[in-house]
Amino acid sequence: MEFKKAIQDYYQGEFAHCYGCGYKNEEGLYIKSYWEDDVCVCRFLPDMKYSGGRKDIIYGGLIASIIDCHSAATAAAFRAMELGLDLETDNIPRFVTGRLSVDYIKPAPFEKELELRAEIKESKGRKVVVNTVLSAGGQLCARGECVMVQIRD
Amino acid sequence: MEFKKAIQDYYQGEFAHCYGCGYKNEEGLYIKSYWEDDVCVCRFLPDMKYSGGRKDIIYGGLIASIIDCHSAATAAAFRAMELGLDLETDNIPRFVTGRLSVDYIKPAPFEKELELRAEIKESKGRKVVVNTVLSAGGQLCARGECVMVQIRD
Repeated sequence: MEFKKAIQDYYQGEFAHCYGCGYKNEEGLYIKSYWEDDVCVCRFLPDMKYSGGRKDIIYGGLIASIIDCHSAATAAAFRAMELGLDLETDNIPRFVTGRLSVDYIKPAPFEKELELRAEIKESKGRKVVVNTVLSAGGQLCARGECVMVQIRD
Repeated sequence: MEFKKAIQDYYQGEFAHCYGCGYKNEEGLYIKSYWEDDVCVCRFLPDMKYSGGRKDIIYGGLIASIIDCHSAATAAAFRAMELGLDLETDNIPRFVTGRLSVDYIKPAPFEKELELRAEIKESKGRKVVVNTVLSAGGQLCARGECVMVQIRD
């Protein structure tokens, strides 16, 4: 299965208002997640207003936020592949976050684009567990684990 | 020990740039945490731009963010009390997040102010573990657990 655009751009309009990744949010972050082989990848450099306590490091809340959005996209894409959907005609499955965990390993600077690489740890019933590694210039900064829950239609 | 202002307003200027709670961030959220008896409390109603996928619910990343900031403030206040500091003359201890976990229980609407109530689960060495309950109009929406790590001077 091939995705021709970012996963978030398959979301239906009524579910595309997310501050982190929705194309209908007028002031959001618009992060984009792309499926590359077995990994879902997002690259993002936040505006410097999203600083942590110190002016030169990225806000931990922002890091948690983009891990969350990227995990939702990863789960949606994976489930679409599992179900063999045709996203030209079928809606992409939607997920909400059941549990978000982030381990902060090293402060992330603003100089280098963040790269998030997410893999599926588990997929069972409505639940998809996504593990994400977040790095900046090759330096590991955080690890995330999200339990995503598919919404019933 | 009595806190005469919000915990965040004791932070030193160089550490007050946080998007979530720093008074020196020009475009931040400015959440404020107050110690009330044995609980640290924050009340906050986000701007509607911080929506989740649906327009009428609050972004999970925003919820994680304010739990994170509020936990940092709770840990700082608790450690200041443990050490018997005089915040008129002593600097408040500073913490970074080692681990943030959020369980999302129910979507939070925009109609009602969010209330975060945080308690200390554990305090040992440089580590303080903070448990937070987040509700909207009395309805439990999320639970957070943060492992906060005190920065060495």
